[in-house]
Amino acid sequence: MPISPDAFFLDRSPERGAGLPLQVQLRRQIIAAVTAGRFRAGEKLPSTRALADHLGVARVTVAQAFAELVSTDYLTSRDRSGHFISDRIERRIEAGDSPPATGRFDWDRQLEHRYSRAQRSDRTRDWQRYGYPFIYGQADPALVDHAAWRDCAMRVLGRREFAAVTSDLYDADDAELVDHIARQILPRRGISAGPDEILLTMGAQNALWLVTQLLLRPGASCAIEDPSYPGQREILSASGARVLPVPVDPQGLPPEAVPPGIAAVFTTASHQCPTNSTMPLARRKALLARAQAQGFAVVEDDYEFEMSFAGAPSPALKAIDRAGAVIYVGSFSKSVFPGLRLGYLVADPRFIAEARALRGMMLRHPPGHMQRTLAHFLSLGHYDAQANRMRRAFAQRRRIMLEAIAAEGMELASPGTTGGSSFWLATPPGIDAKVLTEVLKTRDVLIEPGAAFFSDPAQGRGFYRLAYSSIPAERIPEGIARIARTIRDLRP
Amino acid sequence: MPISPDAFFLDRSPERGAGLPLQVQLRRQIIAAVTAGRFRAGEKLPSTRALADHLGVARVTVAQAFAELVSTDYLTSRDRSGHFISDRIERRIEAGDSPPATGRFDWDRQLEHRYSRAQRSDRTRDWQRYGYPFIYGQADPALVDHAAWRDCAMRVLGRREFAAVTSDLYDADDAELVDHIARQILPRRGISAGPDEILLTMGAQNALWLVTQLLLRPGASCAIEDPSYPGQREILSASGARVLPVPVDPQGLPPEAVPPGIAAVFTTASHQCPTNSTMPLARRKALLARAQAQGFAVVEDDYEFEMSFAGAPSPALKAIDRAGAVIYVGSFSKSVFPGLRLGYLVADPRFIAEARALRGMMLRHPPGHMQRTLAHFLSLGHYDAQANRMRRAFAQRRRIMLEAIAAEGMELASPGTTGGSSFWLATPPGIDAKVLTEVLKTRDVLIEPGAAFFSDPAQGRGFYRLAYSSIPAERIPEGIARIARTIRDLRP
Repeated sequence: MPISPDAFFLDRSPERGAGLPLQVQLRRQIIAAVTAGRFRAGEKLPSTRALADHLGVARVTVAQAFAELVSTDYLTSRDRSGHFISDRIERRIEAGDSPPATGRFDWDRQLEHRYSRAQRSDRTRDWQRYGYPFIYGQADPALVDHAAWRDCAMRVLGRREFAAVTSDLYDADDAELVDHIARQILPRRGISAGPDEILLTMGAQNALWLVTQLLLRPGASCAIEDPSYPGQREILSASGARVLPVPVDPQGLPPEAVPPGIAAVFTTASHQCPTNSTMPLARRKALLARAQAQGFAVVEDDYEFEMSFAGAPSPALKAIDRAGAVIYVGSFSKSVFPGLRLGYLVADPRFIAEARALRGMMLRHPPGHMQRTLAHFLSLGHYDAQANRMRRAFAQRRRIMLEAIAAEGMELASPGTTGGSSFWLATPPGIDAKVLTEVLKTRDVLIEPGAAFFSDPAQGRGFYRLAYSSIPAERIPEGIARIARTIRDLRP
Repeated sequence: MPISPDAFFLDRSPERGAGLPLQVQLRRQIIAAVTAGRFRAGEKLPSTRALADHLGVARVTVAQAFAELVSTDYLTSRDRSGHFISDRIERRIEAGDSPPATGRFDWDRQLEHRYSRAQRSDRTRDWQRYGYPFIYGQADPALVDHAAWRDCAMRVLGRREFAAVTSDLYDADDAELVDHIARQILPRRGISAGPDEILLTMGAQNALWLVTQLLLRPGASCAIEDPSYPGQREILSASGARVLPVPVDPQGLPPEAVPPGIAAVFTTASHQCPTNSTMPLARRKALLARAQAQGFAVVEDDYEFEMSFAGAPSPALKAIDRAGAVIYVGSFSKSVFPGLRLGYLVADPRFIAEARALRGMMLRHPPGHMQRTLAHFLSLGHYDAQANRMRRAFAQRRRIMLEAIAAEGMELASPGTTGGSSFWLATPPGIDAKVLTEVLKTRDVLIEPGAAFFSDPAQGRGFYRLAYSSIPAERIPEGIARIARTIRDLRP
């Protein structure tokens, strides 16, 4: 890419006293840009005339600056072609001349580091390079209907809908998408909601953040499942609220164990994260009765309800919520793809109004293009087709995985679950799941160790999650075999 | 859209004691759905067989429920075609049967209403229906190259880049877009920055929110320009920080008037919002010297720097920021379109790391599709072409507007400004800009009254903004004429 004259500025102010000569400034700008990698070897600089015109200096000033840099190997000059960044710049950069990397402003004093400290540390960013990624939460390109998505995206970018896609919606949502969610998705969870009870969010992550900001003011406390979703705990950790973990059992969260005096309880009733238990109807009612009696809100994270293999999914907590105490969090990350960043909140209109005001201040609204494309994806039946395809593929992977796990004698910590896209396993005594994870990485296998899911990480040593959302069916047996082999290798 | 059997659930639990008969439950579900508008007149219900199969009940149960609803005018039955939602449902809804609109959970006690109270109230959501919209911040479809945008969006949705577009990036940014910003955009502001100094955000709104969260902890104070951008004041109002307004003059913010003891000052140095003054170089240096001496950060909102009509824009504060005290906020809302929701922060790596952690918790990352499409839009030269096109169009509109304003004898409150896409005007004595605005709405003209821009709204009574970013050139003279006429009509 040729370097534009726009990339150059000169400071002419007399106040600088012994101000740097313009030629020196120009040389230093080029050196700084080369050092920072903004100008790259072989790139063509503007002609001396063009640059002189842009800067309002004499052409000879530019020519002299260029000549000096040619003699010091920053630039090369090619007869009539002009000047180029030299191929030998690496040597020059090592020789010095680089400006200090950070300024002198005391950012450490200014920043609390509250968020970086609370940040979860359990993610593997380069998950894609593993041959056997038993990792949760990423898209599987083989299952996403990218042609249908592209078709929907294109429809939305015609002139007719372009205004809707490009406008600043302020704090509003795309009415078409809200309508589809209300009429096509929510009824499947037994939920009846109007537009004033629905708010679109940038994924469930954003929804959980909004809920936390609004419900958990300083000094408030909340209850969470234990083990639970690390993303939720990360948000709560940064909030400063008191977090009271409630151990789950094979039926999920026990309502009678939810402590009093809390502002809210966070639950994953459909598929407990990470154990995948489904909360039975009796418990759901007991939890809601307790919430109404004691005045705490129930935050229901209904991620991946579509992945139910034993018949239709059970109705959501929100569906039987007569008192209006439930805040329902939905997401398209699993059923469409996570890079979409679209989810939604369904709750009492008073809560939604406040959440809308907050979301508006934080980011206005999710991009119109993504909202409207998703609306088409829903209305044209692609969402249903994709959910069905994923369900079939996951059911097959689940079967294969269960067989392999049984054949290898590995231990399911949560047997009998009927949904989700992962298994929760226990290591044999004496084997730390973190150590298992690290050794498996050297064998091209990626698993998720249990520590990140527990309030007390030490409790997670003996657990790990194996998701099948991103690993092709044919690779599962070998992946499981490697895990079993490694477990044997690690026996004390 | 035919109604799916999935939209129905039954509660069979024995614990309900005198539980409602299944038939009654089914009838009530249909009534509730009709009342809530989820089932609409003319829509076809599932066949009695399909619904009975789904619910696991006898077919006669469903048939009896349907028959009852036909007799009460909720449904109609057409021979062999099946059952449909009746066209006469409006009459039935008026007759009652609707569930209570809100539950009994005490949301008013739970919520502080902090955000809804802080919300700015100056927006006109239906701006598009006005014939003469002198409104700022919306896209102009005539100027946005939607064909180029669509082409870029399509390129990105091929198989090759689909993984990048669909993945969960966690808290990372699209490296291609960051690279283009660093090498193509920032150098035009004189800014040299590496990837660890750049964070993508959901527009400038999101950037300003992040900055406020990180810098303004409880008890902190900050300085802002007066008048200033209402969106910034809205965020600060919700933060609870002490906000000290500093009146601007024709050269923008006076550095010597910035009070001591603040954590940060917020400034729009390129085009002061709303007066459009440009801060001269001497003041920029003085401001930065003061910031470094007193230890406060300088938040530079560089919105619409591309709209400079008197030659190249002046370098940003960030470009001469040796101490690293400047947090630079950039946005693509004006130069591409606001529904894109993409902007960026450029700052010290320590600040960026903390902001990245916070953004990750709030929403993970801006959608991959939007990021990658914008990267292509930049690299293919469309951004430059569009900025040039907008500059030419706005220069023409500006000229026409200046002529019309002069011809009508209207008063510019900020003469001599050389950039931006709006004018800042003063009303004659005795005329309240809010009243002027309301009367103009009845005459199909939309203007922005000054009250929202001032810390003390009363100070804004005599000012108003006329933007030309969304009004076609040929409509400007008549729009200005109507404003002038209305001013005459309102003379005391």
